[in-house]
Amino acid sequence: MKHVADIDTKTDRGFALDDGVLIDDAFAVINDPDIDIIVEMIGGQGIAKDLILKAINNGKPVVTANKALLAAYGNELSQAAAENNVDLAYEASVGGCMPIIKTIRESLVGNRISGISGILNGTCNYILSEISENGVAFDEILAEAQEEGYAEADPTLDIEGFDTAHKLAILNSLAYGMEMNLEDIYIEGISGIDPMDIRYAKQFGYTIKLLAISKFLGDSVEARVHPTMIPSENLLSNVGGTLNAVTVTGDAVGNILLYGHGAGMMPTASAVVGDIVDIARNLISNTRGRVPMFSYQPDHIEKIPIIPIDEISAHYYFRFSALDRPGVLSKISGILGDLGISIKIVHQKDRKTKGAVPIVMLTHHAKEAHVKQALAKIGSLDIVSDTPVLIRIEDQGEY
Amino acid sequence: MKHVADIDTKTDRGFALDDGVLIDDAFAVINDPDIDIIVEMIGGQGIAKDLILKAINNGKPVVTANKALLAAYGNELSQAAAENNVDLAYEASVGGCMPIIKTIRESLVGNRISGISGILNGTCNYILSEISENGVAFDEILAEAQEEGYAEADPTLDIEGFDTAHKLAILNSLAYGMEMNLEDIYIEGISGIDPMDIRYAKQFGYTIKLLAISKFLGDSVEARVHPTMIPSENLLSNVGGTLNAVTVTGDAVGNILLYGHGAGMMPTASAVVGDIVDIARNLISNTRGRVPMFSYQPDHIEKIPIIPIDEISAHYYFRFSALDRPGVLSKISGILGDLGISIKIVHQKDRKTKGAVPIVMLTHHAKEAHVKQALAKIGSLDIVSDTPVLIRIEDQGEY
Repeated sequence: MKHVADIDTKTDRGFALDDGVLIDDAFAVINDPDIDIIVEMIGGQGIAKDLILKAINNGKPVVTANKALLAAYGNELSQAAAENNVDLAYEASVGGCMPIIKTIRESLVGNRISGISGILNGTCNYILSEISENGVAFDEILAEAQEEGYAEADPTLDIEGFDTAHKLAILNSLAYGMEMNLEDIYIEGISGIDPMDIRYAKQFGYTIKLLAISKFLGDSVEARVHPTMIPSENLLSNVGGTLNAVTVTGDAVGNILLYGHGAGMMPTASAVVGDIVDIARNLISNTRGRVPMFSYQPDHIEKIPIIPIDEISAHYYFRFSALDRPGVLSKISGILGDLGISIKIVHQKDRKTKGAVPIVMLTHHAKEAHVKQALAKIGSLDIVSDTPVLIRIEDQGEY
Repeated sequence: MKHVADIDTKTDRGFALDDGVLIDDAFAVINDPDIDIIVEMIGGQGIAKDLILKAINNGKPVVTANKALLAAYGNELSQAAAENNVDLAYEASVGGCMPIIKTIRESLVGNRISGISGILNGTCNYILSEISENGVAFDEILAEAQEEGYAEADPTLDIEGFDTAHKLAILNSLAYGMEMNLEDIYIEGISGIDPMDIRYAKQFGYTIKLLAISKFLGDSVEARVHPTMIPSENLLSNVGGTLNAVTVTGDAVGNILLYGHGAGMMPTASAVVGDIVDIARNLISNTRGRVPMFSYQPDHIEKIPIIPIDEISAHYYFRFSALDRPGVLSKISGILGDLGISIKIVHQKDRKTKGAVPIVMLTHHAKEAHVKQALAKIGSLDIVSDTPVLIRIEDQGEY
């Protein structure tokens, strides 16, 4: 290692560097003709982007873990990398130490990938696991997680699902040969999750996880991040704490699952070192661009549209707070029936809270657009207090 | 694809080949100067070995799924590959479509690997899962599995743990930089498993799986294949049917798990195609030996001894068939105590069968040599009928 660049050269990071290694000018590193590989660990979309583009233009391969940058500027970066015939590696950007990038890019090259579903944010998984196991409220766990360092001081990026969406955008690009598209991914975080719904989910044999889900539909893609009810016997349901897991569905492999630490200093370092060695092997072999950055050859990457969330169809969980009066259920189910939404299970067994009883339902397959119309109508009934709760269910296929 | 060679060119395989593609002389393929990559799918250790060595000597890279051959002749084959600077790829040999070879060889290159544990044989996992879920007897399930094509007509290689051991030998070599050593792996199959023990395991919160286990001990290795009790909340416990999974423990990643179809035409094809593309990329890049065949550079591969099974220590499950008389438990526990084996739980609650009652015990950490001495003594007591049952428990560490 020739240089470590940090604008703050004073803070003790807990390890010793030889004299002259630590400098404060990152551009000096990128312009140093003796340096073969650049590792960008700054994060964010400002200086990191400038540095990476400059390194690529200088013909230097780059290793990064910067998912936010890739999700936002992946098309531009991959074009620059291809034009300069420079390797840009990013295994650490998704799933920490799990080799999900290498697996899709290299091992599954013989497959047409039709779906991805994953737990890709350790903070959210930790919070949902704690609520599920110990019944504590969201805010309490979040405060605890912040204290213990599992959650950032500003947890929005994690909690509201944006970090998960960044990762899904990258995986979609790799899996389906589509241009990076973060904007059209539907994103819903976990801040609205009520412990009551986690308890109901359990009763029905489900666990609630924040999932990244995408499906290849032939000439379009379904891509969404939201709290999801999955069967409790599903391996993903058993991924606890801050751990991550991702399932890839391919026509030859069926399902394949990777599981491991999705964040943290050492797991991230493991992925970064893997990338550095990969690039070093390319340098020794005098080869560049051996594997295309986003799996598909640049001229085979297409603009594949992501369908609006209203066009998906799924199984749904609803919870209504309704007055405890005769005829309420018939009114609700009438509205659902009129919109073609067929009910699989209804539960209405709890005691009154503030004069209202929770009515819980699971549906058969229904169109999201119809579901939203129905919930809007039901929510406006004077016998229904509070906004109806909707959680999507994924219980098709093996995991 | 230029040629498919099979001594049987008559049987219809269900797909069409162009005229002249199917031939009956495999050596003609290997000697054809127009052919760049050889794929060996014959299996066995006879002609397959000759073909692979000849191909390597002809400078042709080879893709194989032949774990039995690699486990027996891996050292010879890797030496030949290194001497001729030829790539020999074998992703399909372990875990079918799961990229466990690539993950250890490439992604985990920054880790010191300290352990492996895996479900690597679909037939055994199917049989154990069926016994566990439906309580059917071993022989019945095996017959069923043979009918459905999940088990071979001669199931010895699978059922007695040899196939799993072949795969463990390969993973050990990759993970620890040790010479291939199949002979010293302790191997115990599942044919002796009694549904009664699966039931008791469940009561104690365990599931019985045929596991491949290895641990790096610094200057030696522990390596064994046997039915193993693992905590039911462990992800490996939830790997059902014919599926495979493997956990690798590394100093940076902690634990990482891969899960998928370990056998079958299409999952195996997925791994083979991955290898072919990898080699094709090397050919296009004009590079060979980019990644060392067994992860470590050939001159860094050492003879690392596998310790005898008697030298391991573990938690144990015992089941004794004892006469229902006062003093029996004290006699048995006295023998265990004398040998330093400390009991954690005793159960003695079932009704008599043939005048004997099952006494079931879980131990704290104990040395296998002491356990064997104790069981021999206990087995020879006249108050104990039948040979005592011993099942090793793995409940340390996260999975």
